[in-house]
Amino acid sequence: MRVGNTWYRSIWRENGTGHVSAIDQTKLPHAFEVFELACLNDAVRAIADMKVRGAPLIGATAAYGIALALAERDTQAALDTAARKLFAARPTAVNLRWALERMQRALATVPAGSRAQAAFDEADRICDQDAAVNEAIGDHALAWIRDKADRNGPVNVLTHCNAGWLATVDWGTALAPIYKAFDAGIDVHVWVDETRPRNQGAALTLWELMNHGVPCTLIVDNAGGHLMQRGQVDLCIVGSDRTTANGDVCNKIGTYLKALAAHDNGVPFYVALPCSTIDFSLADGARIPIEERGEAEVLTLPGATAGGFDRVNIAAPGARAANPAFDVTPARLVSGYATEHGAAARIDAVCGSPTAATAS
Amino acid sequence: MRVGNTWYRSIWRENGTGHVSAIDQTKLPHAFEVFELACLNDAVRAIADMKVRGAPLIGATAAYGIALALAERDTQAALDTAARKLFAARPTAVNLRWALERMQRALATVPAGSRAQAAFDEADRICDQDAAVNEAIGDHALAWIRDKADRNGPVNVLTHCNAGWLATVDWGTALAPIYKAFDAGIDVHVWVDETRPRNQGAALTLWELMNHGVPCTLIVDNAGGHLMQRGQVDLCIVGSDRTTANGDVCNKIGTYLKALAAHDNGVPFYVALPCSTIDFSLADGARIPIEERGEAEVLTLPGATAGGFDRVNIAAPGARAANPAFDVTPARLVSGYATEHGAAARIDAVCGSPTAATAS
Repeated sequence: MRVGNTWYRSIWRENGTGHVSAIDQTKLPHAFEVFELACLNDAVRAIADMKVRGAPLIGATAAYGIALALAERDTQAALDTAARKLFAARPTAVNLRWALERMQRALATVPAGSRAQAAFDEADRICDQDAAVNEAIGDHALAWIRDKADRNGPVNVLTHCNAGWLATVDWGTALAPIYKAFDAGIDVHVWVDETRPRNQGAALTLWELMNHGVPCTLIVDNAGGHLMQRGQVDLCIVGSDRTTANGDVCNKIGTYLKALAAHDNGVPFYVALPCSTIDFSLADGARIPIEERGEAEVLTLPGATAGGFDRVNIAAPGARAANPAFDVTPARLVSGYATEHGAAARIDAVCGSPTAATAS
Repeated sequence: MRVGNTWYRSIWRENGTGHVSAIDQTKLPHAFEVFELACLNDAVRAIADMKVRGAPLIGATAAYGIALALAERDTQAALDTAARKLFAARPTAVNLRWALERMQRALATVPAGSRAQAAFDEADRICDQDAAVNEAIGDHALAWIRDKADRNGPVNVLTHCNAGWLATVDWGTALAPIYKAFDAGIDVHVWVDETRPRNQGAALTLWELMNHGVPCTLIVDNAGGHLMQRGQVDLCIVGSDRTTANGDVCNKIGTYLKALAAHDNGVPFYVALPCSTIDFSLADGARIPIEERGEAEVLTLPGATAGGFDRVNIAAPGARAANPAFDVTPARLVSGYATEHGAAARIDAVCGSPTAATAS
């Protein structure tokens, strides 16, 4: 999407070369910096240090990491080492394993000596397909916004966390229909939840929307319910880290509270997701294990100061904190789902899988 | 309550003297500093700069401000000027007007020359009465915690914002029953909402509880719903800035979201409040005007750094923010109310006023 007057993806390869670049997301929103991935270790570090984040983008970065490793030395040992190093960079990321397995499959029949080129091409395809899936989600989910656009004033959309183009290769999931609406000339305004503790809303979503030109306003996570009570939210759109067969949505902590408020105020609550994040092995979300992250994310907060960057402590020394990273929004609170296959009230209507159609 | 091994009120006068001291709440939780109010202007500045905050404490500080002014010069003009200056320090604080009117009434029949002493005595009475009201709230609301104490493990209470002794003269409102439970030997643990944007939970509630020795854990405002879904919250207790005749509760922004989550998970949601904050003139809370505060509170966050204190920017330059300070929790989501008169499921049973008993 747009940054100033230039269109960017979150990661890209210069046409036909071995030059891969990405946006350093640890610097956002305070500085926009592009860095080069020149070798395997650059890719490993970019993933481990969270210069790139978001499941689809991590997968794409790992794919280029394989290509960069093979460009250095095209042997089976080099390929195996690269896959092992990349997987260890963030072992819990679902798309990381998926991308590495896809690369290994694609390269299995390619003779040594020409595998680097094949790997770059396959990584490009992974990126293009991710962008296409997300654009399709945006096209289908655009109807949600269009439905609310036949009146005075902007359509007010509330979103939580960052399910935008920075989390994917392009378009994003929850933000894709917002970009589609804006580009189609619909008057749209976005309430952006700060999304403590890691502040992806304030740091990434707000930055994305501002740079594409979409009107947006930052709010604390506490404010959305009040805005819905006073009629200032027309619909909510969020992403999903994992969706179970019955449509329960595991997403960034705090999503469930907004779904409750939307339900209480008759505001539609929608989820945009690629089918790859549907987990057909789980009947519902009640028993999804929730990652408990470190205390420091809650006890401190990073940001820009007059002198550069710093991290401030917000509690007294010795304070303890708990930090569950996700929560589960029950399907009964979700008004509709959009995937690359369509938009509908039930997940099994848009999952594009016969397994799921019978699983309900 | 206790700070280390010493018992403190938030404001106090040394017995029989004109020496008034208070805790500087702008330094908390990073430093515990007591400052002296030596003259009227010290009291005005303490209120305006929010060294003291919380409606009851502001009222008590204003009362001592009147006494300090009369100790300097005991004339009607000095009294009138003091009242005007103190009221202008934070004109929207309800208890400020109440305390100033009470002081003027109490001094109306006292001859000039002995009014300073009378004013100090009346200010002492305001403090003692506030502490007594809050302690009574704690005694009544203790039943809520005791109800959950007949099993293994601690009683887990979730609270939002700071309705503790720092917001009052002593005991607090929402925290009073927690202190009562802890002092009675009940195994109690408190989940403390950070309470963005001003972080009163992280800065004040957590500090209060830690210093009194009550086990407590800081969480982001997004986390409470998930903890309730997973059975980790036994009850919620919050304070109230204004309660309407039907029991709707106007309190710090985000309270409504926790009430929704409590209701959705069968967790009792209680409100502790002095009767002085009940507004019988309003039938319900739907039309309470909500204070919209400045953007800077949302866009930035203060805290301690290695080098001292700083305020970090969390969004890109040019970002806009909205900052509604309160929301309204409908009475249908409130399980019970406690005032100095008792604890009950309906507000009209504990408001101690015949007006309200018939108003429903």
